[in-house]
Amino acid sequence: MNQIFEQLKKELDRVQALEMSLVLFGWDNATQAPKEAIENTAKAMGILSGEYYNFLINDKVKGLLKQLDQEKDLDAYEKAVLKEVKKSYEDLELIPAEEYQEYSELTSISQHVWEEAKEKNDFSIFAPTLNKIIEFQKKFADYALEKKGGFATRYDKLLNDYEEGFTTKELDEFFEQLKETIVPLVKMVVKKNDQIKKDYAYRTYPVEQQREFNRFLAEYIGFDFNKGVIAESVHPFTTNLHNKDVRITTAYLENLVESAMFSTIHEGGHALYEMGVDDAFTFSPVGGGSSMGMHESQSRLFENNIGRSRAFWEPVFPKLKELFKEQLQDVDFDTFMIGINKAEPSLIRTEADELTYCLHIMIRYEIEKQFMNEDLTMEEIKELWNQKYEEYLGVAPTNDTEGVLQDVHWSQGSIGYFPSYAIGNAVASQIYAHLKTVMPLEEHLRNGELQPIIDYLREHIHRFGKTKTMQQILKDMTGEGFNPIYYTEYLKEKYTAIYENL
Amino acid sequence: MNQIFEQLKKELDRVQALEMSLVLFGWDNATQAPKEAIENTAKAMGILSGEYYNFLINDKVKGLLKQLDQEKDLDAYEKAVLKEVKKSYEDLELIPAEEYQEYSELTSISQHVWEEAKEKNDFSIFAPTLNKIIEFQKKFADYALEKKGGFATRYDKLLNDYEEGFTTKELDEFFEQLKETIVPLVKMVVKKNDQIKKDYAYRTYPVEQQREFNRFLAEYIGFDFNKGVIAESVHPFTTNLHNKDVRITTAYLENLVESAMFSTIHEGGHALYEMGVDDAFTFSPVGGGSSMGMHESQSRLFENNIGRSRAFWEPVFPKLKELFKEQLQDVDFDTFMIGINKAEPSLIRTEADELTYCLHIMIRYEIEKQFMNEDLTMEEIKELWNQKYEEYLGVAPTNDTEGVLQDVHWSQGSIGYFPSYAIGNAVASQIYAHLKTVMPLEEHLRNGELQPIIDYLREHIHRFGKTKTMQQILKDMTGEGFNPIYYTEYLKEKYTAIYENL
Repeated sequence: MNQIFEQLKKELDRVQALEMSLVLFGWDNATQAPKEAIENTAKAMGILSGEYYNFLINDKVKGLLKQLDQEKDLDAYEKAVLKEVKKSYEDLELIPAEEYQEYSELTSISQHVWEEAKEKNDFSIFAPTLNKIIEFQKKFADYALEKKGGFATRYDKLLNDYEEGFTTKELDEFFEQLKETIVPLVKMVVKKNDQIKKDYAYRTYPVEQQREFNRFLAEYIGFDFNKGVIAESVHPFTTNLHNKDVRITTAYLENLVESAMFSTIHEGGHALYEMGVDDAFTFSPVGGGSSMGMHESQSRLFENNIGRSRAFWEPVFPKLKELFKEQLQDVDFDTFMIGINKAEPSLIRTEADELTYCLHIMIRYEIEKQFMNEDLTMEEIKELWNQKYEEYLGVAPTNDTEGVLQDVHWSQGSIGYFPSYAIGNAVASQIYAHLKTVMPLEEHLRNGELQPIIDYLREHIHRFGKTKTMQQILKDMTGEGFNPIYYTEYLKEKYTAIYENL
Repeated sequence: MNQIFEQLKKELDRVQALEMSLVLFGWDNATQAPKEAIENTAKAMGILSGEYYNFLINDKVKGLLKQLDQEKDLDAYEKAVLKEVKKSYEDLELIPAEEYQEYSELTSISQHVWEEAKEKNDFSIFAPTLNKIIEFQKKFADYALEKKGGFATRYDKLLNDYEEGFTTKELDEFFEQLKETIVPLVKMVVKKNDQIKKDYAYRTYPVEQQREFNRFLAEYIGFDFNKGVIAESVHPFTTNLHNKDVRITTAYLENLVESAMFSTIHEGGHALYEMGVDDAFTFSPVGGGSSMGMHESQSRLFENNIGRSRAFWEPVFPKLKELFKEQLQDVDFDTFMIGINKAEPSLIRTEADELTYCLHIMIRYEIEKQFMNEDLTMEEIKELWNQKYEEYLGVAPTNDTEGVLQDVHWSQGSIGYFPSYAIGNAVASQIYAHLKTVMPLEEHLRNGELQPIIDYLREHIHRFGKTKTMQQILKDMTGEGFNPIYYTEYLKEKYTAIYENL
């Protein structure tokens, strides 16, 4: 290892250890911390975030980064770390330490404000906090625009944080393409939905049995319980301390058996990515998934392309039926397969089907773009939300909880993140199409052999962590960069096949 | 608030936040972290422990402590914090930073070495690690003896860390008194034990129902689930991030119903203490219980003096019987009461009854004193252990797991801690005797009214945190300092009453 890099690595290890503690606090808050803990714990997290800033932004690290710029003998890993750290450094350096700490304290409690607002179905409780978060984000983006340059708008800066190289211009085109594909499909679907019987899904499925099935499902798709944990939380998520400590959550609904099932497969896909990162890269700034979109491609690939396919369920459906004998006694495989692939415009993103999902994302993308680049009041954001749901999905929220308050993201300060979900969907289909060309994918699934699939993904995607960009990964694996045509073709083919014959 | 103190408090808040993260890692490791996580996580904990040292031991803190020594207008809280921090500072300052980090890394993995040794029933696996820990502790104690002074022996220094003001001289007398009381009682008990029928306790009690009952028990004695969590671990323990986040664990044994019950009441007693600390003191160096002995007095008061009393079980036993109808159908209240108070010499401290418990402590006290003040080989420690069990309890370990490997403490570097258990037992009886003079204690218990007891303890003990010493608390509350006579009287009275009429 380069000697100067070694010195930098020592500093980065301190940053990493602190970050790990913040990840653990986050996990704990969401899964088990007692209700009244939040105030003191948020204070501790605010302090640790401040220290995180101090550990990274200081003359020692700055000096080492400068020295390393002149080094010629860095290997690929060292170069990737350097690039990643310089990016974080340059971004954070622009923000004064006090502002960063103030913002950290704000976001460590804002999620609880959002939760309260959502529970009470009252946007006015969360609006002042959201306003503050947006003001901070605007200010931080302005620092980057002024002092760093290279971004057309504030929102372009945020997009770049989550998906390097993606701009508003590209995404406008991408979403236009999606709209052209999806809107006609949705129209077709809506007309024929009466013919799909899906009442079986809403029968009573005891949570204890669901837990058992979901544990089986997680293991079936390759989740390694020696390196991971499954817990429960209000909103399912994946997090990780390092590649040997990856954690997912599930939320069980007694009267909606699909909810936990597909959520476990989804989060399991994220987890496989993190568990697959090379040991040499974990505990470093390049030890996680390449980008948010790349990450989402892995969860969506498992949840939708694989997890809603006939071949996947052929060996698994009998197990489900065995466990829920009564609930599924009158349900045959065809009914189940159509049931889990039924599409229908709805109000809630996290419960949206595969077809309409990206319309939910498009709405958020358009709103975020507007409130970041222009000045919107909180009331205007809420109104925009309702109008756009009416316009794109033909359904209108009747209250704040099913409208502007539905997502946790803004309360965490994640603005510009939503588009990664759509990008991830597109990449998932691109990889799915590719997998079919390199292995007998359906045959593997029908035989319950998931390992060859996991091995291939590990070899070509997971193990690299952040040492390669999404574009590099796609090019090296498939021969071409990001291309949404696979996604639109997949949707057309799939939904035409399901609905044409009804 | 004094302005210089305010500056110090800012530094201490950083220390506190880091400590909180280490507490959370500890909790997580013991309750849910995946098996393979330990290596990377131990690395992070080692780094954070090093930072803990850096946050506390530096010129800024040293300067502020010096300045505060001259300040005249400090209030009681500020004085208590200052005293506490100076103590930690002076202790830590004597240890070179590298030695401290080396020691932290050692103790962050040593518990796993001990676990492996215990699992494999092989002391030789743990012996080299224990040897290193003892060598470090000797070295650290020598620093204090040489540079600080005021301690008769190395072991006196360690005792003082856990129980301010307690010396080997006092403890020798204390244990002598205990021996004089307990040994004859044990002799009487052993002769009559055949007449006690206790087979009901070893029937099958399904864990899920035990969980339900233990949750009820915890709530019954005042554990507040809005400020606390109950989880499961191999060895039960209590830990806390602050006064609104207090956590206990239980271990369930299907064929030993008492185990989890009394462990929950015990850890619940610890938890009540931490939950009762004043909001103004939490998140500070005086935000926890006054001393280890004081803490143990609260757990033992609930577990034994209260929790094994007839008055306590009068309203609770019917609930237990209701839940375990089959298992307890032939068990009447008298049988149960004698059963939970049966005493019997045994090999394992954590499973020891109220009467023989302190003999286990005495053995550890004598061994620790010897290996700290003299030079013992690991083999000699093991032999001493076995000899003393034979001598004081009349039982001899047949292997390492039930002998020298049974306790986790030494693997955590806790030497000098064991005597606090005996002190805690004595203080519990002293407080129990006092409670009877200030309230109709048994009547409250018979009526299921625990709140007046909790309120009194909170008012006179809990709320002060570490701002008062154990001696001060006892004097202010009862009019006299530590006095073991209440404990020896309690044991004599109780065991004579139970066994004389058999």
